[in-house]
Amino acid sequence: MAWLQREIRLTARRRGMHLVTDEILAGLDGRDGLAVFRVGVLQLFIQHTSASLTINENADADVRADLARWADRAVPDGAPYFVHTAEGPDDMPAHVKSSLFGCSVMIPITAGRLALGTWQGVYLCEHRDHGGSRTVVATAWGNGPEG
Amino acid sequence: MAWLQREIRLTARRRGMHLVTDEILAGLDGRDGLAVFRVGVLQLFIQHTSASLTINENADADVRADLARWADRAVPDGAPYFVHTAEGPDDMPAHVKSSLFGCSVMIPITAGRLALGTWQGVYLCEHRDHGGSRTVVATAWGNGPEG
Amino acid sequence: MAWLQREIRLTARRRGMHLVTDEILAGLDGRDGLAVFRVGVLQLFIQHTSASLTINENADADVRADLARWADRAVPDGAPYFVHTAEGPDDMPAHVKSSLFGCSVMIPITAGRLALGTWQGVYLCEHRDHGGSRTVVATAWGNGPEG
Repeated sequence: MAWLQREIRLTARRRGMHLVTDEILAGLDGRDGLAVFRVGVLQLFIQHTSASLTINENADADVRADLARWADRAVPDGAPYFVHTAEGPDDMPAHVKSSLFGCSVMIPITAGRLALGTWQGVYLCEHRDHGGSRTVVATAWGNGPEG
Repeated sequence: MAWLQREIRLTARRRGMHLVTDEILAGLDGRDGLAVFRVGVLQLFIQHTSASLTINENADADVRADLARWADRAVPDGAPYFVHTAEGPDDMPAHVKSSLFGCSVMIPITAGRLALGTWQGVYLCEHRDHGGSRTVVATAWGNGPEG
Repeated sequence: MAWLQREIRLTARRRGMHLVTDEILAGLDGRDGLAVFRVGVLQLFIQHTSASLTINENADADVRADLARWADRAVPDGAPYFVHTAEGPDDMPAHVKSSLFGCSVMIPITAGRLALGTWQGVYLCEHRDHGGSRTVVATAWGNGPEG
């Protein structure tokens, strides 16, 4: 049984959906960081309540823009029924989106690699206008070569 | 420490919510496939960005139809603000729903069985009109009888 | 490799979002219950289809009230397109919210403690008017002091 845990500081990004698969893998000691696991699981956990992690299409940037557009309509900035407004009109919507999309993703590991589908990638969903750098705790566990 | 990992090809289904608990268990070497785990966890991960897995009510088909109806209203086909439309009016909504409901579920294992509540079952959420067969990676880990 | 699994009965609460981090930790043999894990993961799984678990802001009760208000608008009680209405106007919306927010959260463990961000806490999302006590299966696994 092998374990790997790393705290990864993601580059600050503007509001919207951002593909971060490569940045996550780099933070896991590079693309060979998971090679020790014959079978296992990777959990990614973002330590914030106004940003999310999700898995979605890794090819067309329009998908990321459309997903952000949908979220901004479903949870509008400055909605009149929000009471928690002291931190700005984008703050409470960011909390709602945080729970809608979730703060954690889990990806199986097969033969030392993430078992993502062909079109899947990891998104950082930055729900704030100026969210700054975000911290992700990456934890992998699984069977090593010796069983 | 024991591990079990299987790639399960789900039967193609029409757009909507579908109860697949039994099909998943069959893919895990049958109902006794998890018997080796005294305590553990099962992760199910769908390798697609236009379908989801979720857990919901396992008895009344109306619940599944109502859940699909709500999702189709919350994320309408052909919404005018979507730019990614080349793959049809049901494609971009499918990506949004994919992240809303999520691509992965985790279920605890107790005494060799899934610790689902009485009314819980696993749903395949097929968000496309013609999604075809979907692939799920099922990974279980836990303590075997020997500790 | 160490495992801990407990069934935790949460106190019945009124409809809305409720911070239950301390109640969960108490159910895990108290704040030292996770001390055995140098590195690990805690999964919380609610065995119901009309309540959820999520992670969000742990300080201002207005955030919890606003999140509930948003959910009640996004999935209205008694919506005319719901067919599954025999259990009351709050039942089918509770099923929808159950899948929107999810029935499970996963939190990494570092040095015997939950690696939550400063502002993160665990919410019980009670989607029913009279949901009663809810059962959570808590499962933790990780490396013990001996490796």
